[in-house]
This record gives sequence, C-alpha cells and structure tokens, in this order.
Amino acid sequence: MPRYKLTLEYDGAPFVGWQRQANGPSVQEALEDAIFAFCAERVTLTGAGRTDAGVHAEGQVAHFDLARAQEPDTVRDALNAHLRPAPIAVLDAVQVADGFHARFDATRRHYVYHVINRRSPPALLRGRAWHVPQALDTRAMHEAAQALVGQHDFTTFRASECQAASPVKTLDRLDVSRAGDMILIEASARSFLHHQVRSMVGSLKLVGLGKWSARDLADALAAKDRAACGPVAPPDGLYLVRVDY
Amino acid sequence: MPRYKLTLEYDGAPFVGWQRQANGPSVQEALEDAIFAFCAERVTLTGAGRTDAGVHAEGQVAHFDLARAQEPDTVRDALNAHLRPAPIAVLDAVQVADGFHARFDATRRHYVYHVINRRSPPALLRGRAWHVPQALDTRAMHEAAQALVGQHDFTTFRASECQAASPVKTLDRLDVSRAGDMILIEASARSFLHHQVRSMVGSLKLVGLGKWSARDLADALAAKDRAACGPVAPPDGLYLVRVDY
Repeated sequence: MPRYKLTLEYDGAPFVGWQRQANGPSVQEALEDAIFAFCAERVTLTGAGRTDAGVHAEGQVAHFDLARAQEPDTVRDALNAHLRPAPIAVLDAVQVADGFHARFDATRRHYVYHVINRRSPPALLRGRAWHVPQALDTRAMHEAAQALVGQHDFTTFRASECQAASPVKTLDRLDVSRAGDMILIEASARSFLHHQVRSMVGSLKLVGLGKWSARDLADALAAKDRAACGPVAPPDGLYLVRVDY
Repeated sequence: MPRYKLTLEYDGAPFVGWQRQANGPSVQEALEDAIFAFCAERVTLTGAGRTDAGVHAEGQVAHFDLARAQEPDTVRDALNAHLRPAPIAVLDAVQVADGFHARFDATRRHYVYHVINRRSPPALLRGRAWHVPQALDTRAMHEAAQALVGQHDFTTFRASECQAASPVKTLDRLDVSRAGDMILIEASARSFLHHQVRSMVGSLKLVGLGKWSARDLADALAAKDRAACGPVAPPDGLYLVRVDY
C-alpha cells in the first residue's frame, strides 16, 4: 500500500487537540474525514506529535496509507479543498517508503513558544500568543534556560498524565529571544514529555519576573518533582514548527 | 477639555470598518462605547485613517475629548477592559494639546500589505493575508512599483466613491519584498486615496504574474482612468501600521 507523508499547518484554537477524541473536533479527525471525502478510504493518520488543545502547528508531520495510489500533489490539493472551512492546511504531500513512520522516525522536533510582553492585550495575536503584561527579563530567562539543555530527568516538567516510558530526555536547544514586544522561546529535542515545553516556559516566566533565580530553575530540575514546577504556560503560544527525519 | 490620543491595534475582520455605520459593528463605535462605559461621557472619536471592512491596524491613531481629565494610563487600561471581547487593543493613550488632530495633523501614514504566495491556503493567517497560489516575481513587482512613487494623479488607483478633493497624491514609498512564502508590500504617503493601496497591490499582482510589464503599470497610471486598474486586492492583507505626526 502506498504511504503518504503530509506536512501540516493549523490553528489549534477550535480543536480538542491533534488526537481523535469523543469530546470534540480534532485535527486528526478533520484530516481523516477529508481523506475519506477525497478517495472514499477510511484511514488512520499518525502524527509526529500529539499537540494539545489550542496548540498550533506550522510544520506538523503525519503519515497514512491508501489502497489505491494517488498523485501526491492531487492529495495535497484535494485535502485542502475538503478541509474547508477548518483552519488546517496541507503544505506538502509526498509518497514515502512503506516503512516510514511519522512518529517513530522523527529525529528532532522543533517548537517555538510566543509570549506577547506588553501592558495591552493582543488584538491581532489573540489565541496565538501568551499575554504577559509584566516586563520580563529575557536575558535572565535565556541564561537560566541553559541549565535545562542536555540529558536530564525532566520529571519536574512533565504532566502527571504523561505516558512516556522514561522521564529522561535530551533537550538540544532552549533559546529565549526578544523582538520588540514579542518573546520567542525555541525548544528542540528528539522528543518531549507531555506538557514539557509549556512547563519549562511557565517556570522561565518566573525567572523573567525576577521571582526565580537561575539557581532556582536548576534546583527545580534537580528536584525531579512535579510540585517544583512553575504554573504551566497556556497552549495559545505554542507552535510545532518543524519535524526532522 | 483635555484631549487624548490613542494608538490602536485591531483585527478588522469582524467590523464594517473604522467608521460608525448603521449596517454593523465598527471599530469607532466599539471604542466610543468603551469610553462611555469607562467614564459615562459620550464622545466622538476621530481616526487618522478610515480603514475599510476587513482592514487591520497595528498602529491606527485616534483622538477624543473628555469633560473631566483622567490619567492616560487609566484610560488605556480601562478601555482595554471594556473593549473585551472585541479584538481591539489600546496600545497607548497620552494627553495631547487641545489643537491636536489625528487626521489633519498626520504627516505620514504607513501601510503594509501581506500576500501569502504558496499553493496551499493559509491556516494560521486566514483573513490576515491575501492568498495568491501562483508564483509571483517580487523583483519585477518591486521594480515596476517604483514608477508609482512620487507625485502623481492616482485616478487609476482610486475608488469611484472616493471623496478626496484631488486625485493628486505624493507616494513616498512602495517597496515589495519576500520572506519565504510571505510577500510584503510597504506603502507610505502623507495621505492615500480610497482603495489606493489595494488598487496598487491588485495591479502589482498582474506584474508579478508576468501578465503586465513595468511599462503596463506606468501606462495604467498615466491613463488616469479607473478602468485601467487591475482587480482590487482584498482587504484581508492590509494593515495600517503607523501614523507619523
């Protein structure tokens, strides 16, 4: 059976998340329904990352199989037509080897978290960034963040419902930068624990406010205790930007 | 009476435009209602530019008078609180001299038009950019655009309902640039005719497609004839980014 790899952009706001769930519309379901509308095949779509409700994607990757081969460009255009009006776009569709797996073959996932750091609430970026009205010291945040880079037990930054076999992960990058009112927090790793990025961002905010020192952040990591984590940042600011294979 | 100057950000999608109208919600009305909710004064707000339905702002400017003086920071915060859930944010409020006029004192208005130039429709920028699926040659667009810079009779690029006294305007800048799939068209002038930016962008698209040469664009300007204009670009991609005084 021919296998297809999709690269996807979506606004996570109207969805219960990537994964198909009984309690509301999911990105996976919208895409599976569009595939059925296109070629009358009921498939299961496997995503590289199971983004939570409200989390966005600029480059999510997913794969599925069809019984009958289709031109990849036709797959892309037909799915985009059938997805309307859902805010999901197929940026690219290619045929891949039978053994390709969007989730297990990913070598690196890249997330970016957007914070809008100004007194006034966002009008244009509502639902697309975390609004933090108090001034954040991004240099202090970036310096403190470096203690999280590398291989660590990330139990502190892991949701209680996380199903990963191990809390040990290798964080390749955690960079904090500012462009005007916008703060970007870029995180890259082979894989992340559930809520890991949002948990790290929530703790980094405490550093930015001056409530935590760099040492406090390092101590929170070393505690390997969920209770040591700062309040988890909201999903609005999180984007899955790219997946490497 | 103390006069206040507001700097405003808004998503134009849910509004009939800046100006108060009987047929639906306007940005002006939402702000005037918020001012009334804050201090029980019925004011008329004067904007620097009367943006059309669907046109966005990152830096619209407006002024109004109050009978009783208020702290400018209190004005900003109170209006932001009362504006909810409308996608309008007061970025800044300052008290200005009695003679200040948001519209007549403006020395330059800066607009940017966003085109998303890729095969797939936008998911994250829906309603925030013009989707043009055919490849556009931005260098040809930029070069052709320079013929419009300077003082000209812009009758070709003027809406039939435009109420300006004269079609002669001085365009200070019309730059076309690309960053990945996003094309930015930056236009600056003391003032613009109604639909001027969208009319110029619509004609530049024809240049980008190779349907018009730079000469065709210059000829369209020289024709001083509305019929010589290309199809007007949609409002979605247009942002009023800054007003200088």
